[in-house]
Amino acid sequence: MNTESPTRVIRMEIAYDGTNFSGWQIQTSARTVQGEVHKALERLLGRPTKVNGASRTDAGVHAMGQVVSFPWPEDARQIGNNELMRALLALLPKDVTVLRLEDTYLRDSKNRLYHARHCSRGKRYRYKLWAGRIHNPFESPYHWQLRRSLPDDAYERISDAARRLVGTHDFGGFRASDCSAEKTVRHLFRAEILRPGPYDFEYEIVVEGSAFLKYMVRIIVGTLMDVAYGRMEPDHIDTILQTADRTIAGQTAPPQGLHLEEIFYPDFPWKTARWSMAR
Amino acid sequence: MNTESPTRVIRMEIAYDGTNFSGWQIQTSARTVQGEVHKALERLLGRPTKVNGASRTDAGVHAMGQVVSFPWPEDARQIGNNELMRALLALLPKDVTVLRLEDTYLRDSKNRLYHARHCSRGKRYRYKLWAGRIHNPFESPYHWQLRRSLPDDAYERISDAARRLVGTHDFGGFRASDCSAEKTVRHLFRAEILRPGPYDFEYEIVVEGSAFLKYMVRIIVGTLMDVAYGRMEPDHIDTILQTADRTIAGQTAPPQGLHLEEIFYPDFPWKTARWSMAR
Repeated sequence: MNTESPTRVIRMEIAYDGTNFSGWQIQTSARTVQGEVHKALERLLGRPTKVNGASRTDAGVHAMGQVVSFPWPEDARQIGNNELMRALLALLPKDVTVLRLEDTYLRDSKNRLYHARHCSRGKRYRYKLWAGRIHNPFESPYHWQLRRSLPDDAYERISDAARRLVGTHDFGGFRASDCSAEKTVRHLFRAEILRPGPYDFEYEIVVEGSAFLKYMVRIIVGTLMDVAYGRMEPDHIDTILQTADRTIAGQTAPPQGLHLEEIFYPDFPWKTARWSMAR
Repeated sequence: MNTESPTRVIRMEIAYDGTNFSGWQIQTSARTVQGEVHKALERLLGRPTKVNGASRTDAGVHAMGQVVSFPWPEDARQIGNNELMRALLALLPKDVTVLRLEDTYLRDSKNRLYHARHCSRGKRYRYKLWAGRIHNPFESPYHWQLRRSLPDDAYERISDAARRLVGTHDFGGFRASDCSAEKTVRHLFRAEILRPGPYDFEYEIVVEGSAFLKYMVRIIVGTLMDVAYGRMEPDHIDTILQTADRTIAGQTAPPQGLHLEEIFYPDFPWKTARWSMAR
């Protein structure tokens, strides 16, 4: 018989504008999203606590659906989810918000506490491109402005190249030089280019995968732009995947175009809908 | 016989994120949109020039369709519209852009040069509201967050109140205390509330009129929110219009929700479409 009282773990989906953050992960001398969430929780709990994020977004990268989790200390005052939501919304700065929050007593297959990263099954990123000479004052912090229009066959060429990325591959050619991952094989479910409109110079590259290497999406996007402008052929993607040679892939696209959109979980969708608390 | 050579006047539609501007009108010690446009043109012309704006937007107010005009000096180097567009896009900061640009030799009925404000017939403003407790990190610089959800009958009440504003009225009750306009009668073509979606806590108030008094739209919106929350009845609008008494109208809504969307001209639409140059 298990006599342990179950431990309450809070999981919440948060969104942030990455412009004024040095990324997710806490640093001693820079403003980070994790740092801001820690600060808010320390105000509530009266002690430091550690929040786990499903994704360690880079400096300048935005998130519409980052998921984070932390155990609620058993000896702390037990406040309800609604009250916790209200308190966090009041304590967090304007560029980070909580979209939904619930508690869970789920444990993983090894009986460990629920953990936003360990329990996730993958995630979706969206990279926004603006291939126009006129800059958009409202959107420029959220896309990569290419300045030159894309050639007429760019959409077909990018689609061809992106299809080659889907599946299980060694993505060693698509990672930062200081990436510390020991294994570089990853699985992509989806990689495609979309034209969201309303303007015909707006493009989005959507990538879904189980896990990602450092800068992987940004190097994929930079490489796809070489394909778009004819500096590389679509089948060059196969060569990068076969050789895992970073030096023959494209540049790293700038961070502000990248949006972490959704983290996938086996129990997705959540009980509460995103934005359900907004009213 | 008219021997004068016609004077070339440049008119252009510009957009700006008002967040970091102290409004349109040039000031000696603050960053303004007019100041930035003057700076860019002085670089091009080698001399100061005066740009006329159709609307003097307040500090923090955004514009998607401000229209400005200035005569191109006859003794300056005559560069084409495309080259001028390219040069201005390169010289202007990221938070202001040129959407389209053309030259005109039109004169008004009194044979005066084309002037963006004198030649305009009216304008449309859109005020964005967010009636939800969760702040949106991407949109908070562009709307007024009300924090409390609107009551179920708010949409009907605002519609009722807004209808009463349409027509020719003395809007003296809807102007800033330091507004210097001598006459306070104005004509509104349209005043209505919209639900743009996708979220049911997003609202927009759209106002079109021939001309506006200082803070007029923002005081209208603040007053409509009093109606929305039941602090005022819809027919109180009639009383404010009849008395022109500022003290019985509502608060001035904050500037960041206000968007100058379009200036109307007799020769609208323009030859070139908005964003046509973006590719």
